Amino acid sequence: MNLLPRVLILMILGSIPLFAAKSPNFVVIFCDDLGYGDLGCFGHPTIQTPNLDRMAAQGIKFTQFYAAAPVCTPSRAALLTGRLPVRSGMCSDKRRVLFPDSAGGLPQREITLAEGLKTKGYATAAIGKWHLGHKTQYLPTNNGFDTYFGIPYSNDMDRIASATKYREACKNAKIEYFNVPLLRDTKEIERPADQTTITRRYTEEAIRFIQTNKNNPFFVYLAHSMPHVPLFRDKPFVGVSKRGIYGDVIEEIDWSVGQILKTLQDEGLAENTLVWFTSDNGPWLIFETHGGSAGLLRDGKGSTWEGGMREPGIAWWPGRIKPHTNHSIASTMDIYTTCLTLAGAKVPEDRVVDGMDLTSVLLKGGKGPREAMFFYRGEQLYAVRKGPWKAHYITRAAYGRSQPEKHDPPVLYHLDHDPAEKHDLAKENPVVLAEIAKVVKEHNAKLVRGKNQLNTLIQK
Amino acid sequence: MNLLPRVLILMILGSIPLFAAKSPNFVVIFCDDLGYGDLGCFGHPTIQTPNLDRMAAQGIKFTQFYAAAPVCTPSRAALLTGRLPVRSGMCSDKRRVLFPDSAGGLPQREITLAEGLKTKGYATAAIGKWHLGHKTQYLPTNNGFDTYFGIPYSNDMDRIASATKYREACKNAKIEYFNVPLLRDTKEIERPADQTTITRRYTEEAIRFIQTNKNNPFFVYLAHSMPHVPLFRDKPFVGVSKRGIYGDVIEEIDWSVGQILKTLQDEGLAENTLVWFTSDNGPWLIFETHGGSAGLLRDGKGSTWEGGMREPGIAWWPGRIKPHTNHSIASTMDIYTTCLTLAGAKVPEDRVVDGMDLTSVLLKGGKGPREAMFFYRGEQLYAVRKGPWKAHYITRAAYGRSQPEKHDPPVLYHLDHDPAEKHDLAKENPVVLAEIAKVVKEHNAKLVRGKNQLNTLIQK
Repeated sequence: MNLLPRVLILMILGSIPLFAAKSPNFVVIFCDDLGYGDLGCFGHPTIQTPNLDRMAAQGIKFTQFYAAAPVCTPSRAALLTGRLPVRSGMCSDKRRVLFPDSAGGLPQREITLAEGLKTKGYATAAIGKWHLGHKTQYLPTNNGFDTYFGIPYSNDMDRIASATKYREACKNAKIEYFNVPLLRDTKEIERPADQTTITRRYTEEAIRFIQTNKNNPFFVYLAHSMPHVPLFRDKPFVGVSKRGIYGDVIEEIDWSVGQILKTLQDEGLAENTLVWFTSDNGPWLIFETHGGSAGLLRDGKGSTWEGGMREPGIAWWPGRIKPHTNHSIASTMDIYTTCLTLAGAKVPEDRVVDGMDLTSVLLKGGKGPREAMFFYRGEQLYAVRKGPWKAHYITRAAYGRSQPEKHDPPVLYHLDHDPAEKHDLAKENPVVLAEIAKVVKEHNAKLVRGKNQLNTLIQK
Repeated sequence: MNLLPRVLILMILGSIPLFAAKSPNFVVIFCDDLGYGDLGCFGHPTIQTPNLDRMAAQGIKFTQFYAAAPVCTPSRAALLTGRLPVRSGMCSDKRRVLFPDSAGGLPQREITLAEGLKTKGYATAAIGKWHLGHKTQYLPTNNGFDTYFGIPYSNDMDRIASATKYREACKNAKIEYFNVPLLRDTKEIERPADQTTITRRYTEEAIRFIQTNKNNPFFVYLAHSMPHVPLFRDKPFVGVSKRGIYGDVIEEIDWSVGQILKTLQDEGLAENTLVWFTSDNGPWLIFETHGGSAGLLRDGKGSTWEGGMREPGIAWWPGRIKPHTNHSIASTMDIYTTCLTLAGAKVPEDRVVDGMDLTSVLLKGGKGPREAMFFYRGEQLYAVRKGPWKAHYITRAAYGRSQPEKHDPPVLYHLDHDPAEKHDLAKENPVVLAEIAKVVKEHNAKLVRGKNQLNTLIQK
C-alpha cells in the first residue's frame, strides 16, 4: 500500500466523526425577562454568576443574540418553531400574550423542535414555563415532548381577588396571591404552585431526565419561570446577592446552570451535549429593582428597541466549540435549525423557516449566516436590522402611556458603533435605507400571516 | 529540637517573604475618558479586548472602582497624591482642568506616588498624558519621576486658528489641527505631536523602561492620551474594530496592555509586578460615537452620576492575586496607599490621605477597607456614597445647558440594587440619610481646602 491511499483514508475517517458519532444531545436553558446586562460576563456590577461566566468562557459568548419577539408567548413560539410568530399566528396587537382565559395555542400544523428531533429518536422533556396554550391539545406532551413538568403560563397570572393591586402583589409577593397550576404532563399536581422552590424543582427534574436518558439522544427544554415577577427563590438563596431579591433569583438560576453542566460532566455526556442559554425578552423595567437591566441597550421588555429583544446568548459544547466571543447576529430561531441539522433531522421545507444553521459558527467560529433580523411588536413590523444597521419604521416605548410613533423616513442606527441606539444617521445614509426597504419588501411579499391564536377566549 | 519551635520557625518564615522578597514593581495603566462599559469583560458588545479580558480573568476585576473626580486634572492629581483634589487645590469651579494658558500645577508640597517610591530606590517613569502643570517646575521630572515622555496636557488642546470649529475638528481630526507638544523630560521634541503613533510610542517607551530597569524595583505610570478626542490610532488598527474609530483606539490600547504584560512575563518580572488598569473619568458622551459608553451607569464624564466616575478597574499580579471579581468599593487614590505600603514606603502622616490600603483585598480577596466615596464636581461636594447608598445633594447633567439642582432632602440610590441610579429611595430611608449627613459633617470638619491651582493664567 503506498502512502496516498492511507492519507486519503485518514482524511475520510477524520471527517466522519460528526456524522458517525452518537447524535448530540441538546439542552436549551431559557429564562424569562432576563436583561442583556444581568450576568457578570455581560457587565453587571453586583449580580454574581460564576457558573454562567465559566460557561461563556468555555463556550461561545454571543453579543448580538436576539429573541424573536419582545414578549413571552410569541418569543417562545418562535424558538420552538424556528419561525417568526407572525407566521404561526402566535402574536397579537390586542392581547400580546396568552392569558388564563385564552382558548388558543400553538397550531397543530407547526412542527416544534421536539417534534423534529422525535423523528431521530430523541427523548424529549419540557420543563418550566410553557405559555403556548394551556388547553390539553396545546400542552408540550401534544407538541413532541415525552414529558412536561411546569407552570403552563406566566407566574404572575391567576391573581386572587383578595390580593392587593397587581404591581403591589408582584413586589410584595406571597405564593397564594398567584393561583397558578403546576402540571405533570397534562395533569394539575399542585395549585397554587409553590414558586419558592420552583427553580430548584425544575433543575432537579432536568437532572433526573438527563440521568434517566443518558443512553438515548435527548433534548431538554428548561424554561425557567424566573426572573419574571413575582420573584421567588429557595431558602439557600434568600439574601445571598448584593443585588437584592432580583439578584438572588439570578444567582439561583446560575446555581441551576452549574448543576446541569456538572451533571453532564459527571455522566460523561458533556462532549456530546450542546447547551444553550438565553432568555425570551428583555428586562421588565416598570418593576424597577424587581426587573433586570438591559445594560447599555435602550429600553426593555415589550419594545422593539434593542433592550427588548437582545439577550445574553451562550453556547457550550466542550471539545467541539472553540471558546470565543462571537459578534455574529444570531437568534433563538437559529437554535431550532441548528439543532435539527446537527441531529440529522429534516428542517421543514414546506413552509418558511426563519431559523438559520449556526453549525459552522459553533464548530469553526467566524461570521454566521444571519444578515437580517425582523423586530415585530405584536403583528406589526416595527424595525429591521440588516448587517450593522437597524431602521425603525415605528417606535414605541415599552410601557407607560406610550403611543406608536411612525417614522418616514425611518430612524436609522449603526448598532455596531452605537449599540445604545442614540444617534440617528438616516439623513446621511439614504442608500442603506433603500437596501433595508428592499429587505422589507421581499419579506412582506413572501409573508403569509398565520391565523391569530391569541385573541380567542374560553367560552364561559 | 521538639516540634513546636520548628512549627513556629516555619510559620515565621512563611510570613516573611512579602517583606524579604524584592520590592514589587508597579505599573499603572491609566486611560483618558474610557467608559465603564467599554471593555469586553465589562459588557461591551462590539469592542474586542482580549488582552484586558485575560488580564481581568487572571487578576481582580473590580466592579465598583472610582476615579476621584469626573474630569482629567483633578482625577490625575488624586491618583498621584492619594488625596481628594480639593485638598491639593487641583480642582476648580471656574476652569475644571488646566489649559495651555494655565500657570498653575501640582503644588510642591504634595508627595506624589513617584516621590514616595523614590525613598525606597524605585526607578520611576511617567509616560503619556500629564495634565498636572506644564511649566517646568510642575512636570513629572520635578515630581519624583526619573523620566518623562508624553503630551503634557489634553490632546484636544492648542487647536490652530484655521481648524474648523472645535467639535468638528475633533471628529474629523488631523494631526495639525492640534498643535500639542511632545516632551522628553522637560524638553519639547515634536510639535505638533504625531498622535497617530502616540499609543504605540508610549507603549514602546514603557517596554524599554521596563527592560532597562529590570534589576531595580520600578514604577511605570503609563497614562494614555487616548481615547480622549481627537481619536488617533496607528495604521495596523485603522478599521480593525466593529465599533468604528473609537473601537479601533480601544483595541490599540488593548494591544498595548498585551505588550506590557508580555514583556513582564518574558523578562520573568510578572510575579513581582503589580499592574493596575483604569481610567481618569467616564465617557465623553457629547462626542457621540467618538465617545465611549458607561454601560448601564448614568451619564458620563463631567458629572457626579456613576457614569462620570466609576471605571473599569483591573489589578494583575500572577501568583499573588487569586483571580476573582471583587465588589468592594475602591478608588484610584487607593492605588497610592497600596503601592506605598507594598513597597514598604511611608504613607504621609502629616496630612489627610484619602487612599486606603487594598493589600489584603489583593492578596486575600474579600471586602476592602473603603466605606465611603466623595463625589466632587469642581470644588463642590455633590454626592456621597456610604456602603451601597449614594446621596446626591446636588445633581447636574454633564453637559448641555444644565444647571446645578440642589436637593433637600438629597436624592438617594441603593447602588448595589440600582447601579443605574433610577429609583430614589430617600423617603423610605431617613436613617440612611442621617448616617450620610454625619459622614459629610465629619468630612467637612476636617477639610482644609488647598489653594486653587487651576485659575491662575500665564501673564502675557
